[in-house]
Amino acid sequence: MLYPGKAKKAYQKPVNYARRGMDLENLINEANRYYLDNDMAVIYKKPTPVEIKKVTYKGKTEYIEGVLREKSTLDYTGVYKGYYLDFDAKSSKSKTSFPLANIHKHQFLHIERVLRHNGISFLILQMNDRFFILEGNVLMNFVNNNERKSIPFEFIESNCLEIKPKFSPTLDYLNVLDKLISKKEEIL
Amino acid sequence: MLYPGKAKKAYQKPVNYARRGMDLENLINEANRYYLDNDMAVIYKKPTPVEIKKVTYKGKTEYIEGVLREKSTLDYTGVYKGYYLDFDAKSSKSKTSFPLANIHKHQFLHIERVLRHNGISFLILQMNDRFFILEGNVLMNFVNNNERKSIPFEFIESNCLEIKPKFSPTLDYLNVLDKLISKKEEIL
Repeated sequence: MLYPGKAKKAYQKPVNYARRGMDLENLINEANRYYLDNDMAVIYKKPTPVEIKKVTYKGKTEYIEGVLREKSTLDYTGVYKGYYLDFDAKSSKSKTSFPLANIHKHQFLHIERVLRHNGISFLILQMNDRFFILEGNVLMNFVNNNERKSIPFEFIESNCLEIKPKFSPTLDYLNVLDKLISKKEEIL
Repeated sequence: MLYPGKAKKAYQKPVNYARRGMDLENLINEANRYYLDNDMAVIYKKPTPVEIKKVTYKGKTEYIEGVLREKSTLDYTGVYKGYYLDFDAKSSKSKTSFPLANIHKHQFLHIERVLRHNGISFLILQMNDRFFILEGNVLMNFVNNNERKSIPFEFIESNCLEIKPKFSPTLDYLNVLDKLISKKEEIL
């Protein structure tokens, strides 16, 4: 083997100090905090649905016992420039294709409903250390016209909008969403 | 006293069998169910925020122990005709005025934010066995230009839109909201 030392170095994954420990959910929360603080949008994560079975009071704190319910909608919702946003964050471990099993049946139904009522629905996909906005319409078209159980990465690369990292916020997805919105406004 | 018998009868509160046991929250849930089933809108109650401290699995059920967190937003959100809706339900026991203490500081902030980003925010008020839509703008104008700690019923009667009962759904608030929306569309 030629230059084994160099080859080894080339295969070493670079350490991204800034993003270390920041998973997709944290990146979205950071962005939403930034949008709220800078009065750009109001977007928040929906609380996990808990069916409360018992409440115990200790001072001012209310302790809950309950059962976790399945989410039938997406994780994030909010308002931006008058538009209703409804989206979810999904990370794919596979480097070649995004498994559709990551999206529940109820979530597909919800995305279709939101689109029918002129809301903006999408997924933020993390794949191969890159981030993409997969539009609800593009997703539903793929699902309805395909037998495949996963979306090939090449399809994502050519049909999604990429979110490139920035300093503040790191994952400035609204900046990318603006392209979708201007397309939407052209149609109307 | 003349005709004491008749007077007594007049003071008797009529029993509304249809609405018996249906509080404001149930009426809104019934309407939201109707709107979803008839594909008119997607509106849901936000889950109660629970900070999850411990999860125990018993079969497929996930048992939760946690602490109840204060709501900083309003109870209901959704999309209707492309508009972002964000609202809350409030019942007033007082017959003469609606106490502003019913609305938390965080909720006022949230209403202002939603309005700034062109969402539609309002309260559904139950008072004197009647139901009203109190627009976010009308509410904020009252709060910012008044020293009063409650909104007089006369103000509500003349500045809110009344939701009259219907058969299905009983509290058809979207029908009334349409008036607000057409006003909004005239301005744009």
